[in-house]
Amino acid sequence: MDYFFYPKSVAIFGSFRKGSIAREILRNVVEGGFEGKIIPVNPKGGEVEVAGRKFKVRERLDEGVDVSIIVIPAKLVPGLIRELKGLTKGAVVISAGFSEVGNVELEKELVEAAKEAGIRIIGPNCAGIFGVHGKFFGSFEVRVRPGGLALISQSGAFGGAALAMGNEEGVGFSAFVSYGNASDLDESDFLRYFADDPNTKVIALYIEGVKDGKKFMEALKYATSKKPVIILKAGKSKSGARAAQSHTGSLAGSYEIYKAVFKQTGAIEVEEMEELFDAAKAFEMYSRAGRRVAVVTNSGGPGVLATDKVERLGLEIAKLSDKTIEELKTFLPPQCSVKNPIDLIADADYDRYRRTIEVVCKDENVDSILVICVPPIFIPSEEIARAVIDAKCDKPIIVNFMAGELVRKGIKILEKEGIKNFPTPERAAKALYWLSSR
Amino acid sequence: MDYFFYPKSVAIFGSFRKGSIAREILRNVVEGGFEGKIIPVNPKGGEVEVAGRKFKVRERLDEGVDVSIIVIPAKLVPGLIRELKGLTKGAVVISAGFSEVGNVELEKELVEAAKEAGIRIIGPNCAGIFGVHGKFFGSFEVRVRPGGLALISQSGAFGGAALAMGNEEGVGFSAFVSYGNASDLDESDFLRYFADDPNTKVIALYIEGVKDGKKFMEALKYATSKKPVIILKAGKSKSGARAAQSHTGSLAGSYEIYKAVFKQTGAIEVEEMEELFDAAKAFEMYSRAGRRVAVVTNSGGPGVLATDKVERLGLEIAKLSDKTIEELKTFLPPQCSVKNPIDLIADADYDRYRRTIEVVCKDENVDSILVICVPPIFIPSEEIARAVIDAKCDKPIIVNFMAGELVRKGIKILEKEGIKNFPTPERAAKALYWLSSR
Repeated sequence: MDYFFYPKSVAIFGSFRKGSIAREILRNVVEGGFEGKIIPVNPKGGEVEVAGRKFKVRERLDEGVDVSIIVIPAKLVPGLIRELKGLTKGAVVISAGFSEVGNVELEKELVEAAKEAGIRIIGPNCAGIFGVHGKFFGSFEVRVRPGGLALISQSGAFGGAALAMGNEEGVGFSAFVSYGNASDLDESDFLRYFADDPNTKVIALYIEGVKDGKKFMEALKYATSKKPVIILKAGKSKSGARAAQSHTGSLAGSYEIYKAVFKQTGAIEVEEMEELFDAAKAFEMYSRAGRRVAVVTNSGGPGVLATDKVERLGLEIAKLSDKTIEELKTFLPPQCSVKNPIDLIADADYDRYRRTIEVVCKDENVDSILVICVPPIFIPSEEIARAVIDAKCDKPIIVNFMAGELVRKGIKILEKEGIKNFPTPERAAKALYWLSSR
Repeated sequence: MDYFFYPKSVAIFGSFRKGSIAREILRNVVEGGFEGKIIPVNPKGGEVEVAGRKFKVRERLDEGVDVSIIVIPAKLVPGLIRELKGLTKGAVVISAGFSEVGNVELEKELVEAAKEAGIRIIGPNCAGIFGVHGKFFGSFEVRVRPGGLALISQSGAFGGAALAMGNEEGVGFSAFVSYGNASDLDESDFLRYFADDPNTKVIALYIEGVKDGKKFMEALKYATSKKPVIILKAGKSKSGARAAQSHTGSLAGSYEIYKAVFKQTGAIEVEEMEELFDAAKAFEMYSRAGRRVAVVTNSGGPGVLATDKVERLGLEIAKLSDKTIEELKTFLPPQCSVKNPIDLIADADYDRYRRTIEVVCKDENVDSILVICVPPIFIPSEEIARAVIDAKCDKPIIVNFMAGELVRKGIKILEKEGIKNFPTPERAAKALYWLSSR
């Protein structure tokens, strides 16, 4: 499927007048810096200018491309697919108006045409795809930063909102696929593909229901054997399942069965959208972590909140070795608490943080470190960020800088180094929980 | 205690050299627009300029003020308090170095001096206070927007981080008090005071432990009879309780006892910092809500997620009356779902949202409405925000606009009208849960 996510050439079929979806997609492809060939196609021909680049609109596709994005009226799609035989490897069908509104026959015709033409289909009724490391933004959704998360979404609108939220939350993406009606390629195919994609460190899946349970279970087993898979299953409650059915036509099936499958395959199920991002951020950084956590803080209260949450989640507050405690005492002021949670108190500076992290990291009783920083009064948060970055430590470090304006610069420096911030002590603790749940 | 939170005059005792805490507080008082008299005091005299205003530093306080803020070495505080007899009604002692580091005797001396002088004390070892509607920012912490939340925090650092986070989350504050060692006034006194403060709509309390359980329970009972009280109790786990003890000297006591007290008094206990703000935002807008929720959305997936969460929290997805369904059908396109969750689909505009909210609001089976808006492709989010604002509805409406850049303008318009946004469907659902838990 590399031709979908790392294409060398793309054709876009649709209307390119201002405000049209095809034009928005063309704009995204151009502005996203796609380096391959870009061919807009419309029987009426003409010209289109987006983002300062002028394109001749071809009346028909007359040379081979890797991927075609199709935004034309539903009833014309099967015919176009037949015409594209030998001219495109894959087609992303954005157009709606197929099985989701009862046009089951039209969708069947599309699938048969594609099979005959040897073309693989994503969609129809989808929001498109991103191959972020191939600089290919084949969707009208907001573009995202490159990173390790491949997001697979049954709901296009959920996907779009999730991309925008991911940008806010500091997530980096390797790919996005909204697969709509899954007439040909489905969630299972994408799970397998991203399991082997070298740019993808973690896969997140939003599903309401799957059609082929056996295929799904095997794909999930395969994917989880390669990398973490996070799943947000919608339609769990009675009313939710009913709504999902009318939304994607998914027979949501018994949630208990899904739950069992997730557990059996080692997939990580999250309950909320926010958790999906927190888990993804954690797995972009680390593939797993043990259960014994050391908390390092410059403020008692938030340290206590983190500690409460760590234990509530079934993780352990690590018991520091005597050697560690002795070593900490050699350089920490006597008002500091050298018991875990380790309170470096309000005037903790670069040195105090860095040395503490390094000493604690060497302790065999410690699997991971949760570093909290509330705005120090006379020390810029950048300095504490530097300490976290510079500390020599080969164990997972999860960071909670809070809050607002006062720590923004520190968070920015961390992000530049690939260290993602979790906005509350509890969410940081939960990040460690996800990491230890594999 | 109006002299603390709506003072007419303030004296600040400490060093006013650059970078000093007293100077930071003076700056906050001036920049915050305090309209009363401001008197910096230091035995060395001199001048201090902050935020473009020049002050003569008096060598001693020679006229009466409502409140004094004290940032001088701990051992000098009792003496100063004795000197202030008749000159100040209240004193906020920022200085640390009392019982929290074992100087129990010094704290006793302070309390006795204050009693003899007839001065009430907040602190010592605290971060100060804000009386936001009195434009009085008597703390070095970041200033906040005026609103309905009074935040009472045992931990100064938690308080500071919470204020900054509140700004990010769109919370409005009536007051803030960090009460430190609670040598005189404690959490119970503030609960009673804010219960009667007309600018306070909701009280949030961060505690690790209380000293006088009976007084606390009575104050809590009183406060909850007047308005919602949200509590974040830290030190619930074994390690957390131990850490709290070393942090604030609180004997956290059995969490089970606290839990019973919260339940018995009708206080709303939250588990996480983020929940504290979500609950506070909900209660800034509404004092309570029933349990039957209607979900209105322009996107199926997020609607399903909200529905799942509503039912998971033990609320109900309202069963719309036949009359409501018939009325919705008269103006909604046939592709829309008129069952709850009501899906207005992607091209929903101002009219569709406004009319739907108004029709649903009249349904006797509906207690509250959860409105979701993912970025519509060709409609600015401002338009949907206007629909929410303009809709005639006398029931609680909780809004989830998501996400990022694409809905920022809409959220801004909502906030201007006092409608707070919840960033995910699940957090919006939980807001309704808090509202229905009173």
